[in-house]
Amino acid sequence: MPDELFDEVLARIRPSAAEEAQMRSVAREAIDKVDAAACAEGLDVYALHVGSTARDTWLKGKKDIDIFLMFPPETPREKLEEDGLRLAKAVSPRYEERYAEHPYLTALYRGLDVDLVPCFRVKDAAHIQSAVDRSPFHNQYVQKNIDAKADQVRLLKQFTRGVGVYGSELRTQGFSGYLCELLVLKYGSFMGVVEHGSGFRRGKVIDIEGHMDRSVEHADALVVIDPVDPKRNVAAALSEQKFCEFVDACRRFLKAPSIGFFFPPPPEPMKKGALEGLLASRGTRLVAITFKTPDIVEDTLYPQLRKAEESVVNLLGRHEFKVYRSDVWSSDRSAVVLEMLVWELPAIERHFGPPLYEREHCEKFIEKYPGAYITSSCRYAVDMPRRYDTANELIRARLTSCGLGKNVAKSVAEGFDIMQNENVLELGPEFAVFLTKFLRAPEN
Amino acid sequence: MPDELFDEVLARIRPSAAEEAQMRSVAREAIDKVDAAACAEGLDVYALHVGSTARDTWLKGKKDIDIFLMFPPETPREKLEEDGLRLAKAVSPRYEERYAEHPYLTALYRGLDVDLVPCFRVKDAAHIQSAVDRSPFHNQYVQKNIDAKADQVRLLKQFTRGVGVYGSELRTQGFSGYLCELLVLKYGSFMGVVEHGSGFRRGKVIDIEGHMDRSVEHADALVVIDPVDPKRNVAAALSEQKFCEFVDACRRFLKAPSIGFFFPPPPEPMKKGALEGLLASRGTRLVAITFKTPDIVEDTLYPQLRKAEESVVNLLGRHEFKVYRSDVWSSDRSAVVLEMLVWELPAIERHFGPPLYEREHCEKFIEKYPGAYITSSCRYAVDMPRRYDTANELIRARLTSCGLGKNVAKSVAEGFDIMQNENVLELGPEFAVFLTKFLRAPEN
Repeated sequence: MPDELFDEVLARIRPSAAEEAQMRSVAREAIDKVDAAACAEGLDVYALHVGSTARDTWLKGKKDIDIFLMFPPETPREKLEEDGLRLAKAVSPRYEERYAEHPYLTALYRGLDVDLVPCFRVKDAAHIQSAVDRSPFHNQYVQKNIDAKADQVRLLKQFTRGVGVYGSELRTQGFSGYLCELLVLKYGSFMGVVEHGSGFRRGKVIDIEGHMDRSVEHADALVVIDPVDPKRNVAAALSEQKFCEFVDACRRFLKAPSIGFFFPPPPEPMKKGALEGLLASRGTRLVAITFKTPDIVEDTLYPQLRKAEESVVNLLGRHEFKVYRSDVWSSDRSAVVLEMLVWELPAIERHFGPPLYEREHCEKFIEKYPGAYITSSCRYAVDMPRRYDTANELIRARLTSCGLGKNVAKSVAEGFDIMQNENVLELGPEFAVFLTKFLRAPEN
Repeated sequence: MPDELFDEVLARIRPSAAEEAQMRSVAREAIDKVDAAACAEGLDVYALHVGSTARDTWLKGKKDIDIFLMFPPETPREKLEEDGLRLAKAVSPRYEERYAEHPYLTALYRGLDVDLVPCFRVKDAAHIQSAVDRSPFHNQYVQKNIDAKADQVRLLKQFTRGVGVYGSELRTQGFSGYLCELLVLKYGSFMGVVEHGSGFRRGKVIDIEGHMDRSVEHADALVVIDPVDPKRNVAAALSEQKFCEFVDACRRFLKAPSIGFFFPPPPEPMKKGALEGLLASRGTRLVAITFKTPDIVEDTLYPQLRKAEESVVNLLGRHEFKVYRSDVWSSDRSAVVLEMLVWELPAIERHFGPPLYEREHCEKFIEKYPGAYITSSCRYAVDMPRRYDTANELIRARLTSCGLGKNVAKSVAEGFDIMQNENVLELGPEFAVFLTKFLRAPEN
C-alpha cells in the first residue's frame, strides 16, 4: 500500500485549516441571512448546507458552495421560484440568476460562489418533485455514514480527475462526487475501490442498501443503486468509454502506483512541425468540421455535438469513405474532428436498384439506367459516376441535411469550415492540446 | 406473339433432315453393335439411346450422342465397369476412356462422339445406384410427354444459351437440357415459360407430378421437382445469379423480343486503348491474380476457382481494401479478377486486443503495446504500422495461406502473378472477351 504516495496526494488536495474555516463561516453566514429573511417575511423556509463542502469531501481550492432553501412540499412551484430568488438575494448584492430545473441564484460572497437553490423538503427521496430535492437526502446519507473516510473520498475524486473520468456532466460523462462517496462507502477505502474497480465488468451492480427495485432495468455500464432511492442508478451518466477508462486506470495504478495518476503532467499542445511529421508518418488525413459554438449550456451542447459526430461518421461510411477515429471539441468554435483512412475514391460507384421481385420498379430502373445489371443478391444495380469523389465534397454538400441537433444545426446552417491537416491548428492552443490526446501521439 | 421470329430461330437450330437421319442411323448401329457383343458373350445387357438426340430436342450441329448400356441392378460394380468398357469398345476401334461416377467410353464413330455409359437398369428412379441410372427414366418421361413440343424446347434451349444461362455444369451453373424440357412441359410452350419465368421469385417451386417429398428441404433459387424422383430438385445446380439473369432476360424479351436474345453478337475483345480509357474514367484498379490452370476437369476446377475468389475478396476486406467486383476466368492460365475501389491505405492500422473483462490478456496486451488504449466497445486497441499498405503486398504475402481448393492451392504454390490494369491483356484474346463482359463496358 503506497501510504507515502497517499500522504503526498492528500497534502495537495486536503483543504487547509484556513480554507476550511472560511468555507464553514461563509456557509454559516449565508444560512443565517436566508433564515433571517424567511423569518422576517414569515415564511416556513430554512437554509441547508449540502454538497461536498458540507460533507467534508471537497478538494482544496474549491470556490463554490451549495446552500439549499428548503420549502414545504405543498408550496406552488411559482411561489417557490419567486420566494426562492428573493430570499437568496439576501445573501449578497452581487449575484447572477441561473437556471437548472428551476431558477436559482449564484451569489458572490467573500470570494466564493454561493449557489442558493430552492427545493421542496419532501418526506423521502421517493417523493421528490424535482431532481434537486434529492440532494438533501444524499447529504444526510453520506454525513451519517462517511465517518473518517473523507480523505479516502478525496483520493478517489482526485484519482478520477487525474485519469480524466471525473464529472458527471454531459461533456465528460464520468463519475460524480456522490458516486465517488458511495464507492468509498461500499469498498471502505480508496484502495478498496481501486482493487474492486480493476475487476469491474460491464453491467456491474452495487446495491449498498440491498434495496434495488428490480422492476427498473438499468442498461448502463455501471449500476450503483442510490441508497436513498431504490429506482435510481447513481452511475447512469457514466459512459461506457469512461467506465472502461476507469477500470483500465485502476489496473494500471495497481501495477505501478504513482503520483502521475493523481496529477498528470499538463498535456502538451501539438506543435505544427510535430503534427506534420505525425501525419506524414501515419498517412491519414485530419479533418475538422468547424462552426460557431451555439450559445447554450454544455449539458445541451455536448449531446448535440456527439449526435453531429455520429451523423457525419455515418454519412461518410454510407458513401464508402472510412473514418479511423472521431471526436468533438468546443470552445468559441466547435468542431467534429476526424482522422480519415479513406477520403478519396474512384470516379464510379454502384447504385443499387430494386430487388428482382419488385417487377414494376425493376422495369423503371432498367428504363432509366440502360447499363443496369442484376447482381447475385437478386437486386439490380448500375455503375454510376460517383456523386462525391472526396469526403470534403460530400460533407460540403450534405452536412446540413444530417441529424445535428437543433442548435448545432442552426449554427452549421449559418456557416461551417472544413479544415485539413496542419491547418486545424488555426483553431488555437486549446485545440492543439485536444489534438495531442486525439491522435494519442506515441510520446504521451 | 413473334411467330416469324421463332420461325427464323428454328430455321437456324432445327437439325436438317440429313443430320437427323445420320443421328438416327449412328444410334441404331451403335445399339446393334453393343447388343450383338452382349449376346455373343451371353450377357444380360442391352443398349438404349437416351438424351436430347433420343427425344428430338437437340440443337442443330450437335456432335455427341448418348447410348446407355443397361446392366441388371444386381451386377457387382466392378463387373459393370469391366463388362461395360469391353462391350463399348465394340462400337468403334477409335475411342477414349473417360470417368464420371464410373468409367465410360467415348467412341468416335462416323464423325460423332458416341458416349457409351454403363448403368444399372433399376426398377424405378428411387432405387438408382448412381446418378446416371436416372437418365433412362428421364428419357422415358420426356418421350412420353413431349408430343409436338420439341421445337418449343429447342427455342428455350437456344434462348438460355443466347442469354448466357444454358448448361448445368459447375462452370456455368445454369439450366440443363432436361430442365428446359420440364419447363416447356409445365408451361406448354416457349412463350409460356418466358411469361411465367418473367414473374419467378427466388424459391419458386414447380412440381409437375404433384408428388414432391416435403421432408426434403430445397434452399435453391428455383425448385423443379423431378417427375421421376420426388426428392430431387432438377434445378439444384442453378445459381442464384443465373436464375436472376434468366428472369431478367424473360422480362426484357417480353418487352422487346428480338433475334439477339437467341443469337447475340459475339462479344468484342477489349482493346488496349479502350481499356486504358475505361480505367482512366472509372479511376478503379484492375487486378488479375493468375496461375497455371490445374489439369483437372472443369466441374472440379470451377468450384475451386470460386472458392479462391471468395477467399481473396474476404482477405482484402479484412484488411480494409475494397473490391468493387470480382470474377474468375480460366484457359491455359486461370485468374481471379478484381476491379478495386481501394487498393492503397495509410501507414497505420488499428490492431484490436482483448475485451476489458479478459484481465490477464489485457495486461499482456498493454505490456506488449505501451500505446494501447481502451475503446468505447470495451476492447483494447493500438495504432500499429500497417502490415500491408497495398492490396498487392497483401496478396503476395498471404494468398498461399488462403482457402483455395486443393488443386488451385497447389498451382498457386508453384507460382502466381499479379497483373494490373492494361497489363491483364497479356492473358490473350479470350481474356479480352471476358473483360468486356466483366467491366460491362457501356457500349455493350
